[in-house]
Order: sequence, then C-alpha cells, then structure tokens
Amino acid sequence: MRAVVALGGKLTCEEIPELEPKAGEVLVKTLSCGICGSDLHALHHLDHMVDLSKRATGSSNMDPKRGIVFGHEFSAEILDHGPGSAKTLKAGTRVVTMPIIAVPSGMDTVGYSNTYPGGFAERMLLTEAMLLAVPNGLSDQQAAMTEPFAVGAHAVAKAAIDEPSAALVIGCGPVGLAVIASLKARGYGPVTAADFSPARRKMAERMGADIVVDPAVESPHSKWAEMGVLTTGMEQTFSLMAGQTVKRAIIFECVGVPGLLAKLMEAAPNNAQIIVAGVCMEPDTIEPFMGITKQIDLRFVLGYTPDEFARTLNDIAEGRIDVAPVITDAVGLSGVADAFKRLGDPESQVKIVVEPGRA
Amino acid sequence: MRAVVALGGKLTCEEIPELEPKAGEVLVKTLSCGICGSDLHALHHLDHMVDLSKRATGSSNMDPKRGIVFGHEFSAEILDHGPGSAKTLKAGTRVVTMPIIAVPSGMDTVGYSNTYPGGFAERMLLTEAMLLAVPNGLSDQQAAMTEPFAVGAHAVAKAAIDEPSAALVIGCGPVGLAVIASLKARGYGPVTAADFSPARRKMAERMGADIVVDPAVESPHSKWAEMGVLTTGMEQTFSLMAGQTVKRAIIFECVGVPGLLAKLMEAAPNNAQIIVAGVCMEPDTIEPFMGITKQIDLRFVLGYTPDEFARTLNDIAEGRIDVAPVITDAVGLSGVADAFKRLGDPESQVKIVVEPGRA
Repeated sequence: MRAVVALGGKLTCEEIPELEPKAGEVLVKTLSCGICGSDLHALHHLDHMVDLSKRATGSSNMDPKRGIVFGHEFSAEILDHGPGSAKTLKAGTRVVTMPIIAVPSGMDTVGYSNTYPGGFAERMLLTEAMLLAVPNGLSDQQAAMTEPFAVGAHAVAKAAIDEPSAALVIGCGPVGLAVIASLKARGYGPVTAADFSPARRKMAERMGADIVVDPAVESPHSKWAEMGVLTTGMEQTFSLMAGQTVKRAIIFECVGVPGLLAKLMEAAPNNAQIIVAGVCMEPDTIEPFMGITKQIDLRFVLGYTPDEFARTLNDIAEGRIDVAPVITDAVGLSGVADAFKRLGDPESQVKIVVEPGRA
Repeated sequence: MRAVVALGGKLTCEEIPELEPKAGEVLVKTLSCGICGSDLHALHHLDHMVDLSKRATGSSNMDPKRGIVFGHEFSAEILDHGPGSAKTLKAGTRVVTMPIIAVPSGMDTVGYSNTYPGGFAERMLLTEAMLLAVPNGLSDQQAAMTEPFAVGAHAVAKAAIDEPSAALVIGCGPVGLAVIASLKARGYGPVTAADFSPARRKMAERMGADIVVDPAVESPHSKWAEMGVLTTGMEQTFSLMAGQTVKRAIIFECVGVPGLLAKLMEAAPNNAQIIVAGVCMEPDTIEPFMGITKQIDLRFVLGYTPDEFARTLNDIAEGRIDVAPVITDAVGLSGVADAFKRLGDPESQVKIVVEPGRA
C-alpha cells in the first residue's frame, strides 16, 4: 500500500507492505488524518524526541533509524476484522479511536511507531475494542478532528474551571483553539485569547473567545481586570475579607517555546494556575521565586483520557464544538511533504488534513 | 531598646528607638524567636530579594539601604495596648501571631520591614485582632515554633493528600521537618524523607518519617515501590484497568537550590505532584518535556493561611506535633550574629531561637 514514510528528516511517498489484522485488531482504510505540530517537530528532531522519551519513561517504541509513518488524528472505515472478532462494528463502519493499539507487551502508538503505520498511509491496524463509530453523519474531516480537540478537552479538565475563575489562552494554534472550543462547549467564560497572528485571532473569535489580544500591541495580562480577576495577593485578601468572590486566573500555555513560562510566571496574577499544554522540547529557565511568591500552580498536561476522547466526539457530533473553521486545506499522500512546509505559516494554515484516497 | 539590626550584610546589636502602640496595636515583649533560613538569605542577598519581590508583586516594603530587624517566628508577652483597645487579652498574656501587622495602607510584615522590628528586638508592635493566646502552658520556645511549623501545614494543605498517595520529602531542614510533622499529625503515611546529613535524617525519624534515605547512597525514588506507588504510566493504566487503587506520588521539595527541580521532574513517577516549598532565589532550568510526558503538577507554595497558623498552634498544644527536637540552641541578642554562622552546619543545628531576655 502507499504511505508517506518519515526517515532522516525527509518525507517520502512510497509502497510499504500490506497489513494483516491479528486477533483483536481491525484493518481500516484511512479516510482523513490531520497533520499535528508534533509531527512537524518529530520529522526534524526525532533523535532528540526519542532521547527525551527514554529519559522520561525509560523506553521509546521508536527507532529513528527506521522509517515511521506519522498520522494520529484520523477517521477511518473498517475493511476487515482479525481472527476471533466480535464484529460489533461491521465492515464499512466509519470509526475514530485514540491512536494507541493493544499489543502483547502492553501498548504501542499508531503514528509514532516503527510497527504500526499512522494515518499518512492508505490503511492502518487498530484495536477493535477501542473503536468508536462516527455518529450523526459527521464528515470524515470533522471526525478526524476528535483527536486534536480531545487535547483541548483534557487541558480544560485538568484546570480548576469549577472554581470562580477566568481564562487566558496563550497561543491560538490547534491546541489553543481546541482549549477555547472546549471551554466554550462547557459554557465557561470569560476567555481571553492571545496570538500575534491576525488570522489566528480571528479563528479564536470563531471558536468563541470573549476577548482577543495581539501581544505585540498590548499585554494579554492587561485584561485580567476586565475579566474580574484581582492580580495582587493584597487585593485578593481584602476581597475575601469583605466576603466577595475572588476569581482565579487560569492560563493555558499553548505555544511551547523556551522563555514563555518564565514570562507568564512573572506576569501572572497571584494564585494563578498555568496549564502547560504547549510542548516545549528544549530546556527552559524559570525564576522559581515568581512561582513561590504568587503560589502558582504549574500543571503540565498531555493527551486525554478515553472518556475525554469520547466526550469530544460527542461534543462535535452534537454541535457544541464546530471544528470546520480550523480545517484550512486537504491533500493526498503526494501533497504531505509540501503541507508540512506550508503549516509553518500561521496566516494561511491551521490544520491540513491528509486524505490518502485523494489523487 | 536593644535590637539586632541587619544592614549591609552585617548584624549589629544596638539601641533603637522605643515603640509606641497606635490604635489596634499592642506593645509586646519578645520571649523567643526562631532564626529562619530566609533570614540567613536576606542578610546576604537583600538587594536581590527586594528586586525579585518588586518584579513579582510590583512593590517591596523593604529598603535595603536602611536597617531591618529580622525575626518572624516568635512568641511574646503583652505589655501595653494602644488607644481604644478592647483588651480582650490582658497585659501579661503570652501570645503568638502571624508576622504581619495591619497598617493604613494595608499590611506590613513584622521582621521584614524598615518600620516594624521583628523578634530580634526586645519589644515589637503587633496587631491586637490577630493575636492568639498561647494555650496549655506551652513553653515560649514551643510557641515560637508555630510559625515555621505552619509553613509545613500549608505545604501539606496544598498537596493532594486526600487522594490515595505516598509522600517523599526532599530535604530535612526546618521546612522539610515541618512537612513531615504535619503529614504525621494528620495520620498520613507512608512518608520517605531524604537528606545528606545523618543528623537531619535522625531528626526526620523523630518527626515520624517511615523511611529515611541518604541520597548519597541510594536514590530517594528507589522507595516508591515499597510505598506502593507505580512509577510508569503504563503500570498505572493497567492497574486502573484491573480495578486496583493507584497511589499518586507527592514530592515535597524543601531545599530550594537550582537544578533540583529538573532532577526531581526527571526522576518523578508518572502523574506526580511536586510541592515546591524550598525557596530557590536564583533562576532555575527545567526540562518541560519531563513535566509534560509525566503530566506533573508543580505547585509553588508560600506561607500559610490564618486557619493553618491557628491549627498548627493547636497541633503543638495538643501534642500532635512535638517541636522540641528541632530547637537545638538558644541565644541572647549578642549571640545572634554567631548563631547565623553556626546555622550553616546541618550536623549541629536545626533551629536556634533568639531570646532577648537572655544575657
């Protein structure tokens, strides 16, 4: 079958061996699959990514010296079932799933593995028990957005949004937009969104941001008063003593570049919670005193739970989250390498989906 | 009156003007006052501390060019009341209080202020409404330990100890010991404590640590299995799927030196919570990827609430916390400068109290 293979920093469209579903697995046809910022990073820095993973978890299931087929934000159609299958979902059913697959040794990832090709291939193997049928006639592209938007749902689930609070989303790329969408799907507000790009700020508004800020013009932190958040400990204490509700600042860091955390900690209101959803792959220097003085809660998040994934699919299907605006282009396998390049421009692109069925 | 004045990195025992209680204030005689690690730092790095405070909060109530009388861990005896006082607590009553004083502009600190001398002076001004009478015939020294042990109570209150969890305390100086004491006062366990100093490890055992570790001999993280904590996300996921209780790792960082956070984040179990109670006054470099991959919650804490302060006094009075072991020496005002030097040796000293009534 045809697939886009990443090796040595290059993407090549080539023939790879056909897949055979084993017990518990299904063979699926890839319908639509988003390109993730992590894919862009992995293409050029896979050695470093694997090294960091080994340091963090003791192991990695990727060998950068062998080819990898990326793609973990997909919708697919069932073609065939492995031996002994329950066939609860029949061939022809359109499905989504978290991009992990059960293997004898535990779990492998679909799209970040030398063994299991991701959605930049015509076909994939998935775990039957984890499949969710695509409901409500959602399009292939909409269904494929379940994964990236589940990332936002998870970041929001880890935040103290049940407390009286207001949110600031730093960076309106796919992660920041998913955070905004998830906050608004839960009826949460107010939300300020900040991004240097006019196109991204427009997108943030379409996702429901109440206030948008160009950090080149004004500090995103200048909006706390407007959102009802007192910034100093003294103000907060006096308000509490006067029996008033004190709103907490919740900041979603959705950029992931060195230096940003330190800036946020220095500018954050007292008692702020910073949800770190941006994936910074380099060492980063902070000033702990800022965190201490303000008693900041710095919460690093990753991925999502099965429940958050399923809930996101439901949010999209029920119209609580409109994913359509973020899909800015669609390409066939032969267009993937070029799409990776074009995603570097925030003005023209947010999410490009790969559709192996396209010419 | 006599006081120890800090100026230009030197401590000098000298005469300073007598104090006069204004409305809402009481004049007290200092009975006993602990020397805090922050005092040692402030003596030599006050300019830097004031700069950081200004960056973090926009202001500082200390001018390093003028003398400051340190001392914020005190017990005292009421001498006189300011005009219009309720005199709920009469002259002669022994009291403790959080080291802050109400002033027209808001709050000032007692012991870190050019205006309000702390406990390294014969007398102090305190806010009448904030005083707590010393109960149960606690000694002056025991009562003075309310403040440093309240720091431990606060760190513990900010931790997720109500979840199934186990704790690791890194550093057994006064902050780490207070954390251990507070955990055990709440009936919490197991607790592993780590310190390079044999004397400090012995002290940790007296405070109730279940396991003590010399980090020079073995990694403190080698004890997670013994405490029932699974370290990898895979192990945790499989345990959850099998319906088993998954214990969370809670790490109390009670040292405050650069480099330690990065080490802890790299070695921490998946889903760990790190409570940062050590006050690192220098920039510090972390590897965000470690936090992200493990979804670490890094919570910076400072001080305590009025409720935690009062509860700590009660814990000491009711025997749930035994503070006696940590008080390793007592000096008069003339011995303060030398005591600051001696506190550099963890083998011989933990907490030295200053008693202005001593020769």
